[in-house]
Amino acid sequence: MSIKTLEDLFLHTLKDIYFAEKHITKALPKMIGKAENAELKKLFEDHLEETKGHVERLEKAFDKLGKKASGEECPAIEGITAEAEELIKEIGDSATRDAAMASAAQAVEHYEITRYGTLITWAKRLGHDDVADLLSKTLKEEESADSKLSKVAISSLNKKAA
Amino acid sequence: MSIKTLEDLFLHTLKDIYFAEKHITKALPKMIGKAENAELKKLFEDHLEETKGHVERLEKAFDKLGKKASGEECPAIEGITAEAEELIKEIGDSATRDAAMASAAQAVEHYEITRYGTLITWAKRLGHDDVADLLSKTLKEEESADSKLSKVAISSLNKKAA
Repeated sequence: MSIKTLEDLFLHTLKDIYFAEKHITKALPKMIGKAENAELKKLFEDHLEETKGHVERLEKAFDKLGKKASGEECPAIEGITAEAEELIKEIGDSATRDAAMASAAQAVEHYEITRYGTLITWAKRLGHDDVADLLSKTLKEEESADSKLSKVAISSLNKKAA
Repeated sequence: MSIKTLEDLFLHTLKDIYFAEKHITKALPKMIGKAENAELKKLFEDHLEETKGHVERLEKAFDKLGKKASGEECPAIEGITAEAEELIKEIGDSATRDAAMASAAQAVEHYEITRYGTLITWAKRLGHDDVADLLSKTLKEEESADSKLSKVAISSLNKKAA
């Protein structure tokens, strides 16, 4: 019963997404290595750089809250990426694998979108407006990554895989 | 290497979300039991009924594809719900727990939103327009559930928890 208040819950969730972002910086290089489509590979590469920026932004958020940046194991992101890795191993055809990887990456984006959405709402409620501003920048980048993945999937990957 | 084509991948993902929806029908009663806020409890109850409808809709989709409905273990939804259950156990205060449960339920909704979004795109690409129509109805309900959770969190739960 270590969580008693919304402030505790906010901090717990910040640690959860900090763990998740760091986990994603390890998962994305594997996706980059496997991606065959040049556009998809570039999206993953760009998003890896963005993700490193999200980790730094979270460290700034912890700093603004007067807390040490630390992660809290996040079974959700572990499950989402484990599922993606298992699936990718089962696909021999590279066009089908690219379509699967784009979809898997969108599942990761959606996890982040929901978590940042919640965190921003809680930060505002708790009067941490500066932290809310920081996290809003990341949320916009996650939404944009999701939307770019949709576009490349529809315009290119799914056609090649079908 | 059991997945060779987009059709195989589509069917695999349909089995994944079928497993996930059935998993959610088991997770939601626990959330209903724990919810203190009447509005939140009602949202969970309504969504449990909707989720049972989503399971049936997926069975219709399998039927339209000439396939037997079956699930494929989905580590993503298992991770998302495991994280929620662990978190809920750590919270003694009921207002804080309600805020956490709304957030956890939104993570579940977002997983479903991304999966149904992908499935609809793939169904259309593969010429399964009738299945795409069925899944689109579910997607709308998931988006609506997510949006209702946001509203009750902002208008009521987070205020009480703060």
